[in-house]
Amino acid sequence: MRAFSIVLKEIKTISIIGSGNVAHHLSRALVGECKILSIHSRNQATGFELAEEHFTFFAESIEDLIPADLFLICVSDDSIAGLIDRLPKDQKVAYTSGAVGLTELPAHSDLGVLYPLQTFSKEQNVDLDSVPFFIEARNTDFAQELFDLAWKLSRTVVYASSEDRKNLHVAAVMVNNFVNHIYALAEDFLRDKKMEFKYLKPLIEETTRKILENSAEENQTGPARRGDTKTIQKHLSLTEGEVKDIYQILSESIINRYKHD
Amino acid sequence: MRAFSIVLKEIKTISIIGSGNVAHHLSRALVGECKILSIHSRNQATGFELAEEHFTFFAESIEDLIPADLFLICVSDDSIAGLIDRLPKDQKVAYTSGAVGLTELPAHSDLGVLYPLQTFSKEQNVDLDSVPFFIEARNTDFAQELFDLAWKLSRTVVYASSEDRKNLHVAAVMVNNFVNHIYALAEDFLRDKKMEFKYLKPLIEETTRKILENSAEENQTGPARRGDTKTIQKHLSLTEGEVKDIYQILSESIINRYKHD
Repeated sequence: MRAFSIVLKEIKTISIIGSGNVAHHLSRALVGECKILSIHSRNQATGFELAEEHFTFFAESIEDLIPADLFLICVSDDSIAGLIDRLPKDQKVAYTSGAVGLTELPAHSDLGVLYPLQTFSKEQNVDLDSVPFFIEARNTDFAQELFDLAWKLSRTVVYASSEDRKNLHVAAVMVNNFVNHIYALAEDFLRDKKMEFKYLKPLIEETTRKILENSAEENQTGPARRGDTKTIQKHLSLTEGEVKDIYQILSESIINRYKHD
Repeated sequence: MRAFSIVLKEIKTISIIGSGNVAHHLSRALVGECKILSIHSRNQATGFELAEEHFTFFAESIEDLIPADLFLICVSDDSIAGLIDRLPKDQKVAYTSGAVGLTELPAHSDLGVLYPLQTFSKEQNVDLDSVPFFIEARNTDFAQELFDLAWKLSRTVVYASSEDRKNLHVAAVMVNNFVNHIYALAEDFLRDKKMEFKYLKPLIEETTRKILENSAEENQTGPARRGDTKTIQKHLSLTEGEVKDIYQILSESIINRYKHD
């Protein structure tokens, strides 16, 4: 137990680096909670637009960013390391990536992570309140400051190591990118057959409703789950190319999972 | 144009064969629209239970079923042909399968299909109103009678050939069974890493919201979409076995799709 309570610094001012989807959504959510002092982005057009939206200063060069309680880096994974090298050594800095580990980055005394596990696109509003934020920092006080900041945006904030965050990112790619790709393949397949994808939407909604309530293993149905190789063979004869390959691989994987039932 | 309007027979009485998930949900929806005269099922326990629920007669043998405006067969694909052979020749019969073509079944004068494109499980109530029903029959009057019956249950009823129905079934397996299997693999992966699947749920909800509004191709994001092979390699090093194989195959498929952007 601590004998004296520690007074943590509250993050009240922020400068943002980046003007992509994450910068867009986080800045909108943060603007009610703290003051955005400046924004820098390699993309002048979208960076200027974002600064204008928040009535704040657009820093044409990274050196022009206004020092703040936090610099929040919302750029692509490959650009993070190069940016950190150019920032003032005494500036607290956090980035928003799931895939980049803290130890992979250059030495910087106050460096942390605030990773929102969600897919963002500019056109779609996202309710950040339900988005889980994963927090990590090289020192515990800064980690707690980041936790408190995320807590202002979301009801799910969790401390997580770089390894945990990377694993979550792998799983996120699976349930978002891979699932969406299967939708794309189904869209293609039906388009080829002159059928409309819209007929699948109630089924997609129901599939989602079930995974939100039960485990995926319990929810599984269908020919591969039943070991109904006759229907699988029929379906393979109706498909070709990539759809056929992926049909086969995923069916085999389902059959293997349930074969001991 | 027809010079005289045809008076179609309205389906007012039904006997049901089967007591699985489809029989369960369709009988519940039909009971408000017509009279269920009898139910037969190979599974005596669930069959009797379903008959009891609807205060109707349980036929221990198929020959004991009470003749009705329609016999509705809700059994597994492999059992349909054998059943049709045992039914009175003048009895109108429809089945609910997506994968079985009309011409694959024995000769029977009034044979049709009423295929609800949805995943059913007994524990979950389904709002049939939004479920698409696909209708086919060997003669057009019977097809229209089935259409009118389905129209009492749903706002989406469509005439579709056996071929269309089979293609829809392939696509349904993709967006339901395969998507659910990816959820299962993500669940396994996170369990191995001592992380909780629940953190993915807001992302799954958002992924679904997007596919209901836009095309899958537009919605795609992530490392494979960006051609970010560095992150893909990192993710492959974090995975193993089946998850690794499927990660690789689906990533390659996404890369191929967008490589000409």
